[in-house]
Amino acid sequence: MPFDMNLVQRGARLRRSPFFNATQRYGAQAYTVYNHMLFPICFGDLEEEYWHLINHVALWDVAVERQVEITGHDAFAFTDMLTPRDLSRCAVGQGKYVVLTAEDGGIINDPVLLRLGANHFWLALADSDVLLWARGVALKSGLRVNITEPDVSPLQIQGPKARELVRSLFGEAATNLRYYWFFETALDGIPVVVTRTGWSGEVGYEIYLRDGSRGDALWERIMEAGRPHKIRPTGPSDIRRIEAGILNWGADMTLENNVYEVGLQRLVDEDKRTDYVGRDALKRIKAEGVTRKLAGIEIEGDRIEFNATRWPVKAGGETTGRVTSAIWSPRLKKNIGYAMLPVAHAALGTAVCVEIPGAGERKATVVALPFLDPSKEIPKG
Amino acid sequence: MPFDMNLVQRGARLRRSPFFNATQRYGAQAYTVYNHMLFPICFGDLEEEYWHLINHVALWDVAVERQVEITGHDAFAFTDMLTPRDLSRCAVGQGKYVVLTAEDGGIINDPVLLRLGANHFWLALADSDVLLWARGVALKSGLRVNITEPDVSPLQIQGPKARELVRSLFGEAATNLRYYWFFETALDGIPVVVTRTGWSGEVGYEIYLRDGSRGDALWERIMEAGRPHKIRPTGPSDIRRIEAGILNWGADMTLENNVYEVGLQRLVDEDKRTDYVGRDALKRIKAEGVTRKLAGIEIEGDRIEFNATRWPVKAGGETTGRVTSAIWSPRLKKNIGYAMLPVAHAALGTAVCVEIPGAGERKATVVALPFLDPSKEIPKG
Repeated sequence: MPFDMNLVQRGARLRRSPFFNATQRYGAQAYTVYNHMLFPICFGDLEEEYWHLINHVALWDVAVERQVEITGHDAFAFTDMLTPRDLSRCAVGQGKYVVLTAEDGGIINDPVLLRLGANHFWLALADSDVLLWARGVALKSGLRVNITEPDVSPLQIQGPKARELVRSLFGEAATNLRYYWFFETALDGIPVVVTRTGWSGEVGYEIYLRDGSRGDALWERIMEAGRPHKIRPTGPSDIRRIEAGILNWGADMTLENNVYEVGLQRLVDEDKRTDYVGRDALKRIKAEGVTRKLAGIEIEGDRIEFNATRWPVKAGGETTGRVTSAIWSPRLKKNIGYAMLPVAHAALGTAVCVEIPGAGERKATVVALPFLDPSKEIPKG
Repeated sequence: MPFDMNLVQRGARLRRSPFFNATQRYGAQAYTVYNHMLFPICFGDLEEEYWHLINHVALWDVAVERQVEITGHDAFAFTDMLTPRDLSRCAVGQGKYVVLTAEDGGIINDPVLLRLGANHFWLALADSDVLLWARGVALKSGLRVNITEPDVSPLQIQGPKARELVRSLFGEAATNLRYYWFFETALDGIPVVVTRTGWSGEVGYEIYLRDGSRGDALWERIMEAGRPHKIRPTGPSDIRRIEAGILNWGADMTLENNVYEVGLQRLVDEDKRTDYVGRDALKRIKAEGVTRKLAGIEIEGDRIEFNATRWPVKAGGETTGRVTSAIWSPRLKKNIGYAMLPVAHAALGTAVCVEIPGAGERKATVVALPFLDPSKEIPKG
């Protein structure tokens, strides 16, 4: 039965992806909203989609990763000012996973940044209006930049067969890509950017469509090429991204958090020579140390359902922390996730108590991240 | 049957209103997402909710109208810089419907602004991250301000019995309120702000809850006091707001539009003495004139369903405009709405052609706004 859009939408306020009609044809069963756009999150059973991702290849409509495009005379200087990463180390043709920081060090967003030219950048966004942030910052910056949302809509192709699939679509140019690098090309005349990136911990690529009128054509072309590899449209897999230790902005980190709390300090290039928004705050936070940390946790007992709220973590009857994500891993046969905990409770091996609303308390233990080491051979089920 | 949250939500990324549990108890049937928060949009049949609103009183969970709070030494100067309205004419205790403008004159948001103190403002937001915009603008402004999202969550009480209801809750202080004025008070110890505002064209008030832990208590207190007036929780009524000529940011206007295109030029105080973001652009746009305008339209023929996309408006086989909102008014027994049209086609009485996806073309006519004059006695059905 087709999904009843009236359950999530009223009027024309929410945008539709160029792949929307395709996702409807292929039976999307649920849509959330992300960057003011409808986002297909499930086409069937979530665990089945997970096994498909780790054994075959999955196609995700992630057009909701809206881009902010920064161009103009001072585009490099301006973009470099938005992030603690040193963009002088990012070549044209290269991407970086970055955080954008507020003046207090809070995380505004954690996009994939692509450098398309000396003064030409895209930020592929998590769910916050960086277009407004960047235009506000630019206002009195004295820098000459153009900041827009271009007609660019990514798809993700993730899973062990992704490599063969992109080879058949784009040849060795795709399979030769190093992690986070990209190239610009066309597929049957459809302009795209192909990146070696993804949100799964599996081998993966993203195809950034550069002409919204060609969504259906690109989708069907990929589905056709993927048939020998059993390609299947699914939602992004939270099970798999949590196994891989990947964070979800809005759930596992927000504007209220900084990189030192959530374990993303690798995204701060401390020897960066140029100034950026939040630099003083991050320096101070690092010197003073944080009071809470996002930790990996394993929750004992039977299979849990994916948390829809931030479950309380209790100590001595008090709520001392919050579970930000927690889910059953069918492969590890464990309940895994993250919790924001006081540093005193965040050391490996610490026993904590998680309260699942309506389902009582569970023992849990702080464990190392990621849950699955991508360098190890992993039984694929 | 309770609404299956998995249809719109995955994980704990989306926030829940302090009234979320109440909306679940009272049988919300659909939730959209607005300002990263779940928003109950329907508790039953939309037309039944409409008739209830115009004959009795309805309670809406609009906690999604997130606030940006601006305080600090320069809060007045800073807030005044964000909008073309002259805030020197806004007294403490008074509110204003405002637009926030980008440097190119685009509409960033159209909040209700409340002035709680000489240097204390709230902006009750439509669906864009003004918190990020304002913090970006503040960065190099040289002004001393604090910009945060406070623990404030509005409810709307709308309909002809709203006046009696707020009298029973808050006494004459509420019924004496002039349009857009407010006062701070407490109800059974629950801290609230009561405003004479709303999104319905009916008599209406908003109750801004200032303590998220008391959502359930406030909701039940209002429901109890409303029982003699047949109060009922519903979603906001698009039928009623379109009848009243009210616009919905994201659908009827976006960052791509300016006040002169969408008929909100009354929100520009041209004699304002202080500078604000977008002033030069608006001056230029006004002098040059706009090329397109949002017009009222009546669409001929049978009852239409509320548009979920921007329907094309055609002239000579070409798409020349877009319907932004269109809906059946059971009271007017007409299909009414708005369309963004080239100025040459936007004059009253112009015949245009609307293409309803999957349902063919319809004749339509440009008509005056609003569809219902609030000053006239209107048959209430």
